[in-house]
Amino acid sequence: MRVLGIDPGLRRTGFGIIDVEGMRLGYVASGTIQVPADLPLAQRLKTILDNVREIIQAHNPTVSALEKVFVNTNPTSTLLLGQARGAAMCALADHHLDVHEYTALQIKKSVVGNGHAAKEQVQAMVQRLLNLNGLPSPDSADALACAICHAHVGALAAKLHAGGALSGRGGARLRGGRLSR
Amino acid sequence: MRVLGIDPGLRRTGFGIIDVEGMRLGYVASGTIQVPADLPLAQRLKTILDNVREIIQAHNPTVSALEKVFVNTNPTSTLLLGQARGAAMCALADHHLDVHEYTALQIKKSVVGNGHAAKEQVQAMVQRLLNLNGLPSPDSADALACAICHAHVGALAAKLHAGGALSGRGGARLRGGRLSR
Repeated sequence: MRVLGIDPGLRRTGFGIIDVEGMRLGYVASGTIQVPADLPLAQRLKTILDNVREIIQAHNPTVSALEKVFVNTNPTSTLLLGQARGAAMCALADHHLDVHEYTALQIKKSVVGNGHAAKEQVQAMVQRLLNLNGLPSPDSADALACAICHAHVGALAAKLHAGGALSGRGGARLRGGRLSR
Repeated sequence: MRVLGIDPGLRRTGFGIIDVEGMRLGYVASGTIQVPADLPLAQRLKTILDNVREIIQAHNPTVSALEKVFVNTNPTSTLLLGQARGAAMCALADHHLDVHEYTALQIKKSVVGNGHAAKEQVQAMVQRLLNLNGLPSPDSADALACAICHAHVGALAAKLHAGGALSGRGGARLRGGRLSR
């Protein structure tokens, strides 16, 4: 399984790709899509769309994971973020990638073990889990953390499934990362 | 000039296409993209993306116009709408169409002559201006009204430009439909 994690934003969209074999995680790539702020909105969205497409074509992920966004109290920001997210998800769905969503709490809990961990702790744990030489940038770290969270949930689901324990509410909870509104 | 108007929504996205020759408007096509509510979010966005693409390929518009959204007081709805808008704009930008945005007030003023006109008045005026046999559906009417608004603004800009009157604040206001945040 190769997981593409995306942390969408209209100014900067982070991405991170990892390989997952059982419990082992391997770093593949990560980075930030920088979106020029002076472009018209449609062009900014196209920048996200085109770059996510390129990343998919370059690395061939088999599944994708996004952070479920914190709904901002500022409606204009929420709308802009929604548009950026829509562009990123279009690129993923266009390449027939399943899109799984996790809350920041789920991601931090999965990566750091504490749902309220600071940004720096997430960066440090991502570096350790993926054996990176340097600290990843905050955008890359968030995207990689999202991919790691999906790897953990997937591994747990496979384990439970193998043990025949995946049924009823537990199973539904494990698959809960998928948003179906 | 062939204008594609879009009224994006996650459940229903309206579209309407008109031809503009000077002050004359000709109806080309309109309708509603129905998005199945039981699909995962990414698939719903892809439905919008693919259908807007198909509409563009079928009718070859030269420019596009969207309603600037009313930012909802419900942040979850705003986020969902933002995502739907992002998907529609991606399809437009992907086909290198300029995207112009107008507020509901600008559109109603342009089509009905009254910025606070009721939905039914917009439908009736769209029917009259485009010489339609029947009343267009509310979604189609909104999308067609948006296209008509762009045609009016464009015609006015051309007129002023021909008379050398396009300068300073007036000019900026006429080009104001373009969002560049």
